[in-house]
Amino acid sequence: MIKVGIVGGTGYTGAELMRLLVAHPDAEVVSVTSRSDQGRPVVDIYPHLRGSVDLAFVAPDLDNLKDCDVVFFATPHGVAQSTVPAILELGIKVIDLSADFRIRDVAVWERWYGQAHQAIDLLERAVYGLPEFNRDKIKTADLVACAGCYPTSVQIGLLPLLEKGCIDLTDVIANSASGVSGAGRQASVANLLSETSDSFKAYAASGHRHQPEIEQGLADIAGQEVKLTFVPHLLPINRGIHTTIYANLLDTSIDVQAVFEESFKQEPFVDVLPAGSHPQTRSVRGSNYCHVAVHRPENSNKVIVLVVEDNLTKGASGQAIQCMNLMFNFEETTGLKSPGLVP
Amino acid sequence: MIKVGIVGGTGYTGAELMRLLVAHPDAEVVSVTSRSDQGRPVVDIYPHLRGSVDLAFVAPDLDNLKDCDVVFFATPHGVAQSTVPAILELGIKVIDLSADFRIRDVAVWERWYGQAHQAIDLLERAVYGLPEFNRDKIKTADLVACAGCYPTSVQIGLLPLLEKGCIDLTDVIANSASGVSGAGRQASVANLLSETSDSFKAYAASGHRHQPEIEQGLADIAGQEVKLTFVPHLLPINRGIHTTIYANLLDTSIDVQAVFEESFKQEPFVDVLPAGSHPQTRSVRGSNYCHVAVHRPENSNKVIVLVVEDNLTKGASGQAIQCMNLMFNFEETTGLKSPGLVP
Amino acid sequence: MIKVGIVGGTGYTGAELMRLLVAHPDAEVVSVTSRSDQGRPVVDIYPHLRGSVDLAFVAPDLDNLKDCDVVFFATPHGVAQSTVPAILELGIKVIDLSADFRIRDVAVWERWYGQAHQAIDLLERAVYGLPEFNRDKIKTADLVACAGCYPTSVQIGLLPLLEKGCIDLTDVIANSASGVSGAGRQASVANLLSETSDSFKAYAASGHRHQPEIEQGLADIAGQEVKLTFVPHLLPINRGIHTTIYANLLDTSIDVQAVFEESFKQEPFVDVLPAGSHPQTRSVRGSNYCHVAVHRPENSNKVIVLVVEDNLTKGASGQAIQCMNLMFNFEETTGLKSPGLVP
Amino acid sequence: MIKVGIVGGTGYTGAELMRLLVAHPDAEVVSVTSRSDQGRPVVDIYPHLRGSVDLAFVAPDLDNLKDCDVVFFATPHGVAQSTVPAILELGIKVIDLSADFRIRDVAVWERWYGQAHQAIDLLERAVYGLPEFNRDKIKTADLVACAGCYPTSVQIGLLPLLEKGCIDLTDVIANSASGVSGAGRQASVANLLSETSDSFKAYAASGHRHQPEIEQGLADIAGQEVKLTFVPHLLPINRGIHTTIYANLLDTSIDVQAVFEESFKQEPFVDVLPAGSHPQTRSVRGSNYCHVAVHRPENSNKVIVLVVEDNLTKGASGQAIQCMNLMFNFEETTGLKSPGLVP
Repeated sequence: MIKVGIVGGTGYTGAELMRLLVAHPDAEVVSVTSRSDQGRPVVDIYPHLRGSVDLAFVAPDLDNLKDCDVVFFATPHGVAQSTVPAILELGIKVIDLSADFRIRDVAVWERWYGQAHQAIDLLERAVYGLPEFNRDKIKTADLVACAGCYPTSVQIGLLPLLEKGCIDLTDVIANSASGVSGAGRQASVANLLSETSDSFKAYAASGHRHQPEIEQGLADIAGQEVKLTFVPHLLPINRGIHTTIYANLLDTSIDVQAVFEESFKQEPFVDVLPAGSHPQTRSVRGSNYCHVAVHRPENSNKVIVLVVEDNLTKGASGQAIQCMNLMFNFEETTGLKSPGLVP
Repeated sequence: MIKVGIVGGTGYTGAELMRLLVAHPDAEVVSVTSRSDQGRPVVDIYPHLRGSVDLAFVAPDLDNLKDCDVVFFATPHGVAQSTVPAILELGIKVIDLSADFRIRDVAVWERWYGQAHQAIDLLERAVYGLPEFNRDKIKTADLVACAGCYPTSVQIGLLPLLEKGCIDLTDVIANSASGVSGAGRQASVANLLSETSDSFKAYAASGHRHQPEIEQGLADIAGQEVKLTFVPHLLPINRGIHTTIYANLLDTSIDVQAVFEESFKQEPFVDVLPAGSHPQTRSVRGSNYCHVAVHRPENSNKVIVLVVEDNLTKGASGQAIQCMNLMFNFEETTGLKSPGLVP
Repeated sequence: MIKVGIVGGTGYTGAELMRLLVAHPDAEVVSVTSRSDQGRPVVDIYPHLRGSVDLAFVAPDLDNLKDCDVVFFATPHGVAQSTVPAILELGIKVIDLSADFRIRDVAVWERWYGQAHQAIDLLERAVYGLPEFNRDKIKTADLVACAGCYPTSVQIGLLPLLEKGCIDLTDVIANSASGVSGAGRQASVANLLSETSDSFKAYAASGHRHQPEIEQGLADIAGQEVKLTFVPHLLPINRGIHTTIYANLLDTSIDVQAVFEESFKQEPFVDVLPAGSHPQTRSVRGSNYCHVAVHRPENSNKVIVLVVEDNLTKGASGQAIQCMNLMFNFEETTGLKSPGLVP
Repeated sequence: MIKVGIVGGTGYTGAELMRLLVAHPDAEVVSVTSRSDQGRPVVDIYPHLRGSVDLAFVAPDLDNLKDCDVVFFATPHGVAQSTVPAILELGIKVIDLSADFRIRDVAVWERWYGQAHQAIDLLERAVYGLPEFNRDKIKTADLVACAGCYPTSVQIGLLPLLEKGCIDLTDVIANSASGVSGAGRQASVANLLSETSDSFKAYAASGHRHQPEIEQGLADIAGQEVKLTFVPHLLPINRGIHTTIYANLLDTSIDVQAVFEESFKQEPFVDVLPAGSHPQTRSVRGSNYCHVAVHRPENSNKVIVLVVEDNLTKGASGQAIQCMNLMFNFEETTGLKSPGLVP
């Protein structure tokens, strides 16, 4: 039984880590920090954890984390990079759910996140936490930078096509939509129910932070640059990301369904639906699965890939636990096999 | 490992049984019937069960159920009563989620359900499946009539007050609201998203089928008749029942918070929230817990009880599995301890 | 054509005043104030008003309001009372949508709103803005305190029963539910879509600010004290209030449907539905109508009244314009006859 | 005052025609047909029209329509074509909201709609009802085939770029999402709230009926074939379509914002938002406006166009009335200037 610490436990990804780890037989959460709510029982803020989590939030001090085997950072961008070095020095593994260690090019990171990076020397050490591409490296890593929510869906949707070299790399489009929980549990006008429900919109259509992360990931997979157009949208739902990918096949005679099935046949959490299917975000609500479907419009060289995931699970906390399982040599699926909640 | 059959697997309570039993270490679903969809893989209709359920629907024939240790009926009212006798004769235990065996007075049943009852002689043998009141009888039953969704919330909310004799039994009001999944997975105009979302209404305000069931249950608890006014409402949500109960205290000096905490302190699935709390349906979304809170308005003899449950879980399939655990002498909470899904 | 000023134009009731007044042939909005957003075009914040409203927000100074014939206060509680005296002195009529002038007993107001009242001498002068009860006084008022959203629904639902003396005044229950827009357009965690959607809860079950306002109103109608139990709930919808009222008939032989139809037959905005109906909040979405239905459960002395309104329209801005129409001797329904938006 | 008939009044577009025509000073609905609900008051099915519409549904017989000046068909596909010829012969103008007369190539129509066309000779006479492209022809038409909901959003979003010849016509992508009301008011499992809420999915990703209509329209605008990839998605909202268009600019130095503003500057219902904006579907909820925004991602030849409309208003009934206004020489905006309903 390993001991787990969570830094930033009042946010949704922190709460999701706790919810999922309740079912994990080999890991126990021993410490959950919150700067603002220290001293309060976790269940004060998250009554759904009553009966499952008995902890109170503690201050985010090294002292409260030093007995852990692994610490998850479920913090806003910019927080992990100031604390992670000290934790690693204690021999504790770190899994960061924020964007702090995802982008290797520090100039790109600093441009998109608008601040100086405080742990530049760790950027090389950090392993990008997308098991479907990076499984072996994750197994031996002590610092994992979990793939972001949108980036996970786009990379999984393109992985078979890139690995097989099926598509034109100069023009790939990812049209994504996320539930509101992706914006976190922050007081804001923009994400009130009265502002977002019964409505839909794009945002950041001219450029979004996740774009450089995705492009780096796609280039790693393809072995060369991939030119991506990415537009995120805001769905009036709690959880779920749906990505619709448009790419141009180099050879239209290829059986794309077979390419996808072959590519993912060993993957425990990527499920290629039967030909003709349309995945729904609710099918993976609360679960760590991705559902993927591939379509070929008539008389066209286009391939359309549909990917759904739960942004808080496979897009964040579930993926982080999947990485933890790999890092600690547990069965990769341990604690993560629950089906989605439908309806 | 017991073998489980589910009659009526295409409805929401059938799907919820399958979802929950995936996590049950001592029970395995071996047969799921559907008259309309026999031959189709379960995951065709319920893709959230991909990776968890490999069965195809079979015809609702005795032959397909005869190897089961227990059969759940997740069917519309009127179906179970025609098949249950034959199943019981095979020595198979039956847990009925429909209303067929809930009401002992056959005339009342026939009036509210508009049909002749076909298994009248089983009405006495059936045990009402509300573990919080009937635990011992359920343990030895071979036919359990699971408490309905609304009735569970109302009875749990009133149980401490009735057992302690704290309230005037001539005037109790239960104002309930349910998510749309309570209406089942039937083609209908009334339950389209376009007809129910972003809206709210009462229904059956002059009289609802669940009223005689609730009144029977309250009388069993109180040992005498309880006069109930019950108005259900339709919430634009998937899952969840919220019941607000109004009753008149006989003695206003009583500490109702203590009464509730004392009454439920041994109950694994009824959680009395701290004084001043307001339970939310989402806190128990997908879980088998009830959250209960008690309020006392100033200068008044009223006691207000707030109860939430998931209508498909504690209000149906979770409760049915809780009964199964009792009937087979498993730990009562086996397979049912998952926290709610938030957000 | 009268000139209208709106103080507090960035909130939902301010926006709703603008939306409704676009269609008013005899009133023109000339000034909309906002402390935080002065200088910004209204349509920056409310793009739905593009093509309809060309104003920019101005500072809430007397100078920006002095040419108005009437000024609406769509401000948080406590704001109007400091500015209204100066505006009235200029001979400008005031319609206050906040609670500042609704409660005649200043001690009660100060207790529930937690601050000292700054315009106590105006409390007597203010006329309570519920046209269905106070029409004649509103016509000659220069300061109208619009009835609150919940209070409007409860008072309208009880008005026929109180005027006819049909019910026991010692035990009336109003179980209300409101859409999230009732909480206003304030940054908050509690009202995020991720916190409120797909969920339902009661709040303030031990006592809510609107209770003294409602009790005052009911006493005015009944001519004596009415003992009310009031529990509000939060609906995961944008707009709409649904109130379910429970009262005890003194004489169960009375035809309550006829009492309601008779009582409201001249009312332009209160519509008694046919016997057996269940009003839906969506039917009055964006409209100034109330729909009311009355039910009589069998074998009971209870009468159940169901009332729906749009909290931002009949519960706030529509009612305010209805009052304005009365105060300026316009046809009472001018600009307010649009049907609800369905679906 | 012209006399209006509506064939198919129980569906959402029929109800929307009634809602909008209440506010039209020059048109009066005199006849609303329904095969299934003849004899029932309209407000039985649509209580939001109480106080506005006093009609009962009548049989869809010629006799019930013969006194009309114009008849709207708000019927499922395949219905209008059998009745329209007889109505036109009476000298009555027809505005068809279904797809029956939208596609000039009868073979294409028959392939996608799976039936033989019954009024082929009218296909040439029918004028495609998209005022932004076809205004002059609509003015003199006696049979207008209103543009479909998705097609309207795609054509408006591309119109400036096609008219100016700015983009590569061999690769245009329209990623659209529609509210559930687009599926109509039909009993179905697929569109239950329990099946669609809190979820999102694509559908018909391999080919959708609206594609040939859109391609025909784009070719008419461009004067040559346009190769379109179109994927519709289902939003868990009542009303609203959002289309995200991706195209490749031929000359990246062009000022696309200026192209759009110039192109639509005279259009009463197409509103180009300021540069950098992201339109929301709710801003046009219940209104006849389209909001359009244009984006240019960095270092790319892509242009991204965002378009929102209400699928029942500008995407159906509002557009139909806009056409009616043109056909009867009324001011084009008559009865259609209401702002959207927010929140």
